[in-house]
Amino acid sequence: MTRDRGQMTLVAFMQASNVSVYSGSWRYPSAAPDFLDLRYYQRIARVLEEGTFDLMFFDDRLAMPSIYGGSPDEAVRYGARPVKLDLMAVLGAAAAATSHLGLGATYSTTYYPPFHVARSFATLDHLSGGRAAWNVVTSVNDAEARNFGVDQHLGHDARYDRAEEFIDVVTRLWDSWEDDALVMDRESGIFADPEKVHELAHAGAYFDVQGPLTVPRPPQGRPPIIQAGQSGRGMAFAARWADLIFTADPSREIALEHYRAQKQLVAEEGRDPQAVRVLPMAYTVVGETEAIAREKEEIFLDRLVHPTASLALLSEVTNHDFSGHALDDVVTDELIDSVSGIRGLVQGVRRHVGAQQLTLRTLANHRATLLQGPRFVGTGAQVADQMEEWFRSEACDGFVLAATHFPGAFEDVVRMVVPELRRRGVFRDEYTGTTLREHLGLDRPTSVFARSEVGVDA
Amino acid sequence: MTRDRGQMTLVAFMQASNVSVYSGSWRYPSAAPDFLDLRYYQRIARVLEEGTFDLMFFDDRLAMPSIYGGSPDEAVRYGARPVKLDLMAVLGAAAAATSHLGLGATYSTTYYPPFHVARSFATLDHLSGGRAAWNVVTSVNDAEARNFGVDQHLGHDARYDRAEEFIDVVTRLWDSWEDDALVMDRESGIFADPEKVHELAHAGAYFDVQGPLTVPRPPQGRPPIIQAGQSGRGMAFAARWADLIFTADPSREIALEHYRAQKQLVAEEGRDPQAVRVLPMAYTVVGETEAIAREKEEIFLDRLVHPTASLALLSEVTNHDFSGHALDDVVTDELIDSVSGIRGLVQGVRRHVGAQQLTLRTLANHRATLLQGPRFVGTGAQVADQMEEWFRSEACDGFVLAATHFPGAFEDVVRMVVPELRRRGVFRDEYTGTTLREHLGLDRPTSVFARSEVGVDA
Repeated sequence: MTRDRGQMTLVAFMQASNVSVYSGSWRYPSAAPDFLDLRYYQRIARVLEEGTFDLMFFDDRLAMPSIYGGSPDEAVRYGARPVKLDLMAVLGAAAAATSHLGLGATYSTTYYPPFHVARSFATLDHLSGGRAAWNVVTSVNDAEARNFGVDQHLGHDARYDRAEEFIDVVTRLWDSWEDDALVMDRESGIFADPEKVHELAHAGAYFDVQGPLTVPRPPQGRPPIIQAGQSGRGMAFAARWADLIFTADPSREIALEHYRAQKQLVAEEGRDPQAVRVLPMAYTVVGETEAIAREKEEIFLDRLVHPTASLALLSEVTNHDFSGHALDDVVTDELIDSVSGIRGLVQGVRRHVGAQQLTLRTLANHRATLLQGPRFVGTGAQVADQMEEWFRSEACDGFVLAATHFPGAFEDVVRMVVPELRRRGVFRDEYTGTTLREHLGLDRPTSVFARSEVGVDA
Repeated sequence: MTRDRGQMTLVAFMQASNVSVYSGSWRYPSAAPDFLDLRYYQRIARVLEEGTFDLMFFDDRLAMPSIYGGSPDEAVRYGARPVKLDLMAVLGAAAAATSHLGLGATYSTTYYPPFHVARSFATLDHLSGGRAAWNVVTSVNDAEARNFGVDQHLGHDARYDRAEEFIDVVTRLWDSWEDDALVMDRESGIFADPEKVHELAHAGAYFDVQGPLTVPRPPQGRPPIIQAGQSGRGMAFAARWADLIFTADPSREIALEHYRAQKQLVAEEGRDPQAVRVLPMAYTVVGETEAIAREKEEIFLDRLVHPTASLALLSEVTNHDFSGHALDDVVTDELIDSVSGIRGLVQGVRRHVGAQQLTLRTLANHRATLLQGPRFVGTGAQVADQMEEWFRSEACDGFVLAATHFPGAFEDVVRMVVPELRRRGVFRDEYTGTTLREHLGLDRPTSVFARSEVGVDA
């Protein structure tokens, strides 16, 4: 990889609520409380556009956490992400307040049909002038299944098989109007050229979709795809489909290896590894001085998350109900063996706390704040140093920045870190294009239907 | 019905495209072409808010017309409504441009699950400050079924049974957070009161939904429901659930009878007939002089709709493929007997054209322009006269106004008709509330969960 990697990609990780991925965020003293008002999202979007971010993208989840104690009570009580608004209305409002910022949303391939997903993102892409992105998730959660009358979610591989077919259908629905299909000639009365608007007549293992889509081809052709698979199948899936790959790497050493392996998989799929961005999630805590940043980090780490909220979220992540345990119970080898997915987390936390006996409280608290990604703390220059080191050493192509609170965490980055990154030449001074694909330097794909016609003529 | 009926309710019937329910609208000389840009919808919304309309609501359809010739080709070619954008993104942008106008969307109870519908409208209601409305449709179209991998749509009664359960689940999801559930006390760390956030644990004939919704209770409690059922079961369904009933009555005489019958059904459901608005669809063609209005009507009636587009839409409405017929084929008794639902249309058109032999061309053209509702043509005062007559005689509580073209048809109403209606005291001078329920004078319903608690205490 000797060719120029270009500049860093910066993505803001959003929630359609006042609770960020860090569940103490709503209690942060300067957090904005008006998350049910569209101006809350417009304000954040404008800040990110001021900072020439590539993209803000919204997480989603179609149920409250309810593994802990078998009910959503503790998630509700302590704000462990019980609120998730519908994203398209939020993004329509955000699109209206901005002109360049990419706008991404998480949509599940399990709980939406492909026709809706194709139509929603094609619409958002038009309304925003080419700024939509789709974060593909396959959904694994029992609580979500129960909100949709599905008793058992699909197994891991079946979910990915379904997701592959889903994305294939969605991209062909986006392609179903060729780029020049819309004519709108008032004189002749020809609205569009039926030779250039195609039915799919898709009949697959999971979906039957006739098409065409009721929306002309999106300005980006196909809105970029974001994906966060960490498993073997997930990494292969991301290598095949994703434009932005969202990772959770606890250290730069792990990230370096992950980055190399993921780019290798992209190359094996016959795609250009440079065109696919690998972006670890990271927290930033930025202060006017290092002391301010350290003090903010203390608030973030210790004072705002109720330990029961952390344990409820740990229950959710591990699919294990910890309500029968006390917070000061020691994490035993037996527990580690019996709870799937907890081993990596324990190892990560041990790196921070040393060899001492680990309690559930410590484990849950670290899970709530660490999020298996790096934490960059300091002045603008200090945070930029760390981000630059990750970027230049090829541990990443940029970052998905999580917020300790909204909107202050992003305001701090935009006002103190972004100018430093620009000074170092690792981040854009201004937008040079208007679509998200242009920000990312990605080609605009041709419609598969247009391609096949070219094939016939050649 | 001697008590004061209040003022007229005015609703704008919108499409998320530049083709109104009248499929020649995109060819209208002053029609705006930029229907893929969010500013198109914001502009129209602002005009309607200037005219203190109660509501703009968007039609939807999850497929292109494709009965005619078994393909969407003619619908695509002539603009017979081949485009339908996703509505939530459009409405998010419209909400951002307005502060009082109600914002309605059509969502099918067949092709969406209730959790999504509840979440979308609860979100829109919050973001807009209490201005959302849901137009409930049960979907009957084969083309839609084929985009969702459903081979056969449900029978008429089964669709209504499913819709009843669907609305029941949606309203209880809206109720699942009581009004004062959200606490957000930073000091104590209590985000919300779990005693006031309820699971539904709904297990019904069609849906299993656990809940709670991931959105606090909407500002309106429950966004108003719009419904357009004309059949016996449809009228009963509307009487039970709808706040706004959208009708298609070809004459005032028919409307008077329909109005009376529908209000009777509302009373039989134990609801206040005054609180349910019956609103016929109507076209307005308004000119600075009567001659201008008549000339505009000529454009509308004769010059813009391609007869094949009309026949394609007639095919869609009757579920009969007319592509084997010539436009000048006479409509025979045999044809009337063999095509379901065409008899009423033929009778309606005969009222306009007299006893002459009716051709398919004439029938299709009238269907394309008449839309089984009245057409009010003239100066602002003349149009206001006709609207006032319908309203005062209790043929309606107001109108769902269809547009000959966007945005001009609504601009003409706002600038020439609305001032006349205000002068006559039949329409508001200004908004007196901010929510749609306030515009409609509707009470805000209590959450069923709060009600049952009151019952326990009493």
